[in-house]
Amino acid sequence: MKKAYVRPLDLRHGSVDLSHGGGGRAMVQLISDIFARAFDNEWLRRGDDGAVLPAPAPGERLVVATDAHVVSPLFFPGGDIGCLCVHGTINDVAVMGARPLYLAASFVLEEGFPLAELQRVVLSMAAAAREAGVPVVTGDTKVVEKGKGDGIFITTTGIGALPAGRELSGANARPGDAVIVSGTLGDHGMAIMAQRENLAFDSAIRSDTAALHGLAAVAMDAALDLRLLRDPTRGGLAATLNEIAQQSGVGIVLDEAAIPVDPQVAAACEFLGLDPLNIANEGKLIAVCPAAQVDGLLAALRAHPLGARAAKVGEVIADDHRFVQMKTAFGGRRMVDWLAGEQLPRIC
Amino acid sequence: MKKAYVRPLDLRHGSVDLSHGGGGRAMVQLISDIFARAFDNEWLRRGDDGAVLPAPAPGERLVVATDAHVVSPLFFPGGDIGCLCVHGTINDVAVMGARPLYLAASFVLEEGFPLAELQRVVLSMAAAAREAGVPVVTGDTKVVEKGKGDGIFITTTGIGALPAGRELSGANARPGDAVIVSGTLGDHGMAIMAQRENLAFDSAIRSDTAALHGLAAVAMDAALDLRLLRDPTRGGLAATLNEIAQQSGVGIVLDEAAIPVDPQVAAACEFLGLDPLNIANEGKLIAVCPAAQVDGLLAALRAHPLGARAAKVGEVIADDHRFVQMKTAFGGRRMVDWLAGEQLPRIC
Repeated sequence: MKKAYVRPLDLRHGSVDLSHGGGGRAMVQLISDIFARAFDNEWLRRGDDGAVLPAPAPGERLVVATDAHVVSPLFFPGGDIGCLCVHGTINDVAVMGARPLYLAASFVLEEGFPLAELQRVVLSMAAAAREAGVPVVTGDTKVVEKGKGDGIFITTTGIGALPAGRELSGANARPGDAVIVSGTLGDHGMAIMAQRENLAFDSAIRSDTAALHGLAAVAMDAALDLRLLRDPTRGGLAATLNEIAQQSGVGIVLDEAAIPVDPQVAAACEFLGLDPLNIANEGKLIAVCPAAQVDGLLAALRAHPLGARAAKVGEVIADDHRFVQMKTAFGGRRMVDWLAGEQLPRIC
Repeated sequence: MKKAYVRPLDLRHGSVDLSHGGGGRAMVQLISDIFARAFDNEWLRRGDDGAVLPAPAPGERLVVATDAHVVSPLFFPGGDIGCLCVHGTINDVAVMGARPLYLAASFVLEEGFPLAELQRVVLSMAAAAREAGVPVVTGDTKVVEKGKGDGIFITTTGIGALPAGRELSGANARPGDAVIVSGTLGDHGMAIMAQRENLAFDSAIRSDTAALHGLAAVAMDAALDLRLLRDPTRGGLAATLNEIAQQSGVGIVLDEAAIPVDPQVAAACEFLGLDPLNIANEGKLIAVCPAAQVDGLLAALRAHPLGARAAKVGEVIADDHRFVQMKTAFGGRRMVDWLAGEQLPRIC
C-alpha cells in the first residue's frame, strides 16, 4: 500500500484518532501495521471487502455465532478482551457440536485509545486464534469520538461446520439425564470482579477463558447420545440450566455438594454476597447425557487438561414447572432461579 | 420463556438499562419482545448459542464479510442505522460475486437508549433483511453504562455463497478496462453531513442506502468477463479506485464530465468544501470490465431501478506509479488521491 504521506504509527506513544476510521490512508496504515500483521493469513492478504473461503465438507451444515465483547477492564488476570473474544465465539460454535473454521472480527475504537493497548489486544487475539487453529479471515474497524465509546469493543463472528446427523440442542434434555460441568464455576466473573473491587487474595483469581472446541470434541466422542453442550457465560450455570429447562420442558435438580468451586472464588463470592451459580464462566462446558454414559464422559473430560475437575452436578427430572432446584448441603432444597437483572455488568 | 417476575417492556417510555445485558430474565425479555419478534425465523426460534444453517451448494465457496456500524445521527433522510447495517453487509458480500445467504447481528447498547428508538432500528433492520431475502439468523446484545457508548452500535456479519469459477477481485483490473459507476456519487455522505450541519435545501438530500446484490447479479450476467465489483463507501470513489490501482498494479484515469453527481449534492459539497469523489456511498457499485463489454453492462445496469444513472467514468491504464488521475472539465489532469485522514467521521 502507498502510505508515503502518512507518518508512521507511533506504537509506543500514539493513540487512535478519527482518521483511523476514515477509509483513507491512516486507516489503511492502521489495518496493515497492526491488524493484518498480527492476523496474517492468505484470506486477509487479498485485501478485498470480504473473505472467500472453502465451504464445509459435503453433507455438513453451517453454524454461525456472533458476540459483542465490552468487558471492563480490558486486561484481567488470566486474559484480556482479545483472547476472550476469540475463545467466547469459538465456544459458541463448539457447543453447537460444530468444528470452528473461521472468525470475523469488527472493532469499535474510541478516539484516544492508546495504540500500544490496541496492539496488545490484537496480538492476544491473534495468539488465541492461532492456538485454537481458527483464523481471523476478515474484519472491520470504526472509530468514535472520545467519550462516545470505551476504549475498544470487539464483535467476533464464528463460522463452523456441523457434521451430518449431529443434533445438539438445549431442547434435547430428557428426564433421567445427568448434568455435568467440566470444572470449577465462577472463575471468570470473579477474576473481573476481584479486579474491579481491588480484592486482595493470596493469589489473584484468574479467568478460565479458554477455547473449548477440543474438550467439546472429546465429550462428543465419549458420550454417543450426548444431548447438548453449553458454555455457561453471562448469568452463569443458573441462567444456562434455566434456559435448558425451558427449551426442553423439564426440571433440573442440582446437588450443591457436587458443584466444583475454587476456594478463593467461593471466598470472594461470600465477601461480595454473590452466588457462584450466577457468575460467568468463559472456559467451562455444561454437558447433558443419558445416565448410563456419565462415567465414560467424566473419564474422558478429566483426561483433558481443560476438564480435570469435571463433575456430575445434577439430573434432569420431569417437571411441568420447568424449575431448576438445588439440594443444599443441609439436606433442604432451594430454587435456582436466573436473575431478573444485572449482577455483573460488562463481564464479557 | 418464563418472565413472570420481570415487568413488561414499556416500549413507549422505557429505556435500555444494564439489566438488559445481564444474561438474566430482563435480557431474555428484551430479546424475545424486540429482536426475536422482528427477525422471526426458524433459526432464531431455536434459541441456541448459534444458528445451524444449510451450507452452500456443492462446489460453492463461502464468502464472509463483517462491518461495525456507528453512524451518527442514527436516523437520516433515506434511512437509518438499521437498514444501513443490513445493506452495507449484504453489499460487501455481493461485490465479492457471492449470493448473500445469512446475516448475524450484534448490538452494543448504551444505558438509557430509548426502547422506542431501539425498536424502530430493529424493525428497520428486519424490513431491510426481509426485502433483501437475507435473514438475520443469530445475534447478541450487550449493554454499556451511560457515557460509555453512543446509543447503539451494530455489527453485522454476512455469509454468502460464491459459485465455482467466479473470481472477482480488486486485483483483476487490466489496462484498457473500463471503470463504471452505477449512479450518482456522494448521496449517502452528504445526506448525513447536510443533517449534521443543518443545511437547508429545497428537498432533503437522501441517502442512497440500498441492497445491491440484485444489481450485482445483473452486472455479472451482462459482462461475462467482469473483473471486479466494489461498493465505494468510506473514502468514496477516490479511496476505492486507489485500492483497486494498488491491488491490480495499474493506473486509472477518470473523466470528470462523465461522473454523475446529484445537483444538490454538488451544491452541498461546494458549500462545505468537499469533493464528491471522497464522499461515502451506500447504494452504488463500481464495476471494472473489458472495454468491449461496456455497452452491454451499461444497458443492463440502466434497466435496473438501482442503476438508472449508470455511467462509464474512466479507464484503466498501465502505470507503475498506480496513480488515479482525472481529466478535468477544463482539459487538464489532476491526481485523485485518497485522503490521508478523516473527512466525515461516523458516516456508516
